[in-house]
Amino acid sequence: MTAADSDGARPARSGRRPGQSGTREAILAAARERFAQVGFDKTSIRAVAADAEVDPALVHHYFGTKQQLFAAVVELPVDPEVVLRQVDAVPLDRLGETIVAAVVGLWDSPAGAGAVALVRSMVANGDTSLARDFLLSVVLERVRQRIATDTDDGRLRVALAASQMAGLVISRKILDLRPVSGLPLPQIVAAVGPTVQRYLTGDLGQDSPGAGEP
Amino acid sequence: MTAADSDGARPARSGRRPGQSGTREAILAAARERFAQVGFDKTSIRAVAADAEVDPALVHHYFGTKQQLFAAVVELPVDPEVVLRQVDAVPLDRLGETIVAAVVGLWDSPAGAGAVALVRSMVANGDTSLARDFLLSVVLERVRQRIATDTDDGRLRVALAASQMAGLVISRKILDLRPVSGLPLPQIVAAVGPTVQRYLTGDLGQDSPGAGEP
Repeated sequence: MTAADSDGARPARSGRRPGQSGTREAILAAARERFAQVGFDKTSIRAVAADAEVDPALVHHYFGTKQQLFAAVVELPVDPEVVLRQVDAVPLDRLGETIVAAVVGLWDSPAGAGAVALVRSMVANGDTSLARDFLLSVVLERVRQRIATDTDDGRLRVALAASQMAGLVISRKILDLRPVSGLPLPQIVAAVGPTVQRYLTGDLGQDSPGAGEP
Repeated sequence: MTAADSDGARPARSGRRPGQSGTREAILAAARERFAQVGFDKTSIRAVAADAEVDPALVHHYFGTKQQLFAAVVELPVDPEVVLRQVDAVPLDRLGETIVAAVVGLWDSPAGAGAVALVRSMVANGDTSLARDFLLSVVLERVRQRIATDTDDGRLRVALAASQMAGLVISRKILDLRPVSGLPLPQIVAAVGPTVQRYLTGDLGQDSPGAGEP
């Protein structure tokens, strides 16, 4: 706790921000730097607030959760929470088709165009660790918690599913690999859904489920 | 045929090349430009030779086949022919595991490091059409010819397999997505081989195999 916590609606110190827009920008700048330096997991809303010299409540007020703040920093064109709620709502044996439909539907939407530019830029700069962190900590973690059992933590399963989804999105949106790039959503779901389902809940032919842990 | 065809071991015109190294460079430059302008399929050894003002036999002498010339132009660290021969040699029902083992093995080898740099640069520049052409015309075409039937030309099948392989390579080599990135080859083959096998020879749940053709 800092002295700034006494008033959630005002910057902790005055004289630096010209107004709301300046405060919002200062929070974004602080978050961008901290995410880049220590990664998604180790970044806290409180630390970002301290860097931006504002009250943590103000960060929540402007941006919501940490994952929503991250989405704003990398200019994600969509709130990941919306997709994750679809994944939470279906039975385990429909996870594969649901994930394929949600992810491909999202990338095919107008919002997907901005995401393609983001991917290009990240791959170009070799700056993929933050995207991976976010994928592992937020998106895949939610799926992992659904499929984990006493003998299988599900980490390899969600990473394999992510490998197929990444390849599918890149084939459709960056490589324009026909006929996959032109295939209507229902046919993509029929073709790729079973792959993702097997990765998440099927037999992977591993002697020991956790054997791949580094 | 041009007048230059009378002597396969000498440049068609003299006075432009300082020596063998200059000739080789001139062929590479001509090939680079032509591949970029008209794509892999429409580029002929003869056209490249004409652009470089050398005899076509000299292009074959220095570089071998058109695909080997392409590999030299994009500085592919490996001869694709070597991988394709492994694919040709196995029965249909072992294609999945063979392709996963060959592709992952290749990218895990020292030669793979150069390929990672190549992928980064192509994605960054949006310059992926040539890579896609090459993938479709050479690598996937050989596999497609093996699996095509009277009612299914196999194009969707090889593209789906390519989407999984692209995602797997990117997850291991660019995203460093654990535990997929650290998983030993035999476990990768056990996990992903059946996916590629199903894409190539299994049930894809499509009403009509050719329905995805653009």
